[in-house]
Amino acid sequence: MSTKLEELTDTGATPDQLGIGMRLSIHPHCDDFVEVILGALADAEAAGLTEGLVIDTDEVSTYVGARTAPAEQRLAAYLTAVVAAASRRSGGGHVVAHVLLSRGCPGEVSCDLAVTGLPDPAPVQLERTGIRAAAQWSLYPLLDGGSDAGDHMAHIEAAIASARRRGTTTSPAHYATKLTGDVADVLATAVDAWAQVGAHVPHVVTHLTVSVGSPSPVEA
Amino acid sequence: MSTKLEELTDTGATPDQLGIGMRLSIHPHCDDFVEVILGALADAEAAGLTEGLVIDTDEVSTYVGARTAPAEQRLAAYLTAVVAAASRRSGGGHVVAHVLLSRGCPGEVSCDLAVTGLPDPAPVQLERTGIRAAAQWSLYPLLDGGSDAGDHMAHIEAAIASARRRGTTTSPAHYATKLTGDVADVLATAVDAWAQVGAHVPHVVTHLTVSVGSPSPVEA
Repeated sequence: MSTKLEELTDTGATPDQLGIGMRLSIHPHCDDFVEVILGALADAEAAGLTEGLVIDTDEVSTYVGARTAPAEQRLAAYLTAVVAAASRRSGGGHVVAHVLLSRGCPGEVSCDLAVTGLPDPAPVQLERTGIRAAAQWSLYPLLDGGSDAGDHMAHIEAAIASARRRGTTTSPAHYATKLTGDVADVLATAVDAWAQVGAHVPHVVTHLTVSVGSPSPVEA
Repeated sequence: MSTKLEELTDTGATPDQLGIGMRLSIHPHCDDFVEVILGALADAEAAGLTEGLVIDTDEVSTYVGARTAPAEQRLAAYLTAVVAAASRRSGGGHVVAHVLLSRGCPGEVSCDLAVTGLPDPAPVQLERTGIRAAAQWSLYPLLDGGSDAGDHMAHIEAAIASARRRGTTTSPAHYATKLTGDVADVLATAVDAWAQVGAHVPHVVTHLTVSVGSPSPVEA
């Protein structure tokens, strides 16, 4: 397999070999949800944000795999654009996105990661959208017995501390951490934390439920 | 603290002490989503399915904690009823639920599980709803270095094999396993697998995106 230079991460492995990608589902709470979803995906594509990504929509969600570096930046920019476009296309209505970001498990079921060095990617750079989001965020470093990568809560607590410094973490909740702020800041918090844990732990997954335009009372 | 006999699991710990619970968000894709959501939650309560549960809705999702045994049965029955009621109340329209089931991390951030014996709960018993669901399901045994609980993929593969015997597993996808079947069978598959891994691994989380009434083409 030939690999062009720009496809490589700093460890020499491609994002594809590391299995860096996400599953995304987007839920506009309106009668014309099909038009909103398809329009939002088309907007992100028209903005050139599908470059370096492979995108495959099925009955439940959309798989987005990063083929070339910078993988985290490509995924975060696409995700932010889709959520913002869905919000705009629904006239600022209630839209929820559910996102699963995964790295280190490139197969569909098997988890045979042949890469030895782990990349240490730069933080993502996202333009603010002007849209407020509230999110619930969970981070899962998948350590195995005998690993020297420490205990899973230490990685989670470090990620939460980092989010707190950034200003997007507000409060812990059962099983999740609440994030609030501009859509771009909320998504960057989760993507950067996932990537940073991934510099120490090969297989890391994060889940994020992102809500915009909710009629529920806004919490601190 | 006084503990009544029926509150105990077979290890002598309460579900509350084990942190057995879930976060649930439900997304009717229609203009009157508020009425559908509130109505579905009210239907499940009117059916007596909130017994033994503590329920707290915030801006993003609803926390449902099991206070008394049988914890898994209570959570699964409530969840199935809410999804089925939302589907009925939206006239069979498109409804998606996102569910995070967690056990073994009773605190909000800390994960200091004092329980030594892990429960081995019976499979849940759910009445079929007559509603077809397609779901994407991920299971995370959170093992730490030095644990004798094995490697995380072995637990996941055993759970998928169990789902296949049950007839709800169809195909692997990137980062998730596809489940299809009656809402009750799909949810029972995920709840039982999560509980069974929890008999070996203290901290286990599973995420499930459940879709009913989708206009997307049905896949095998």
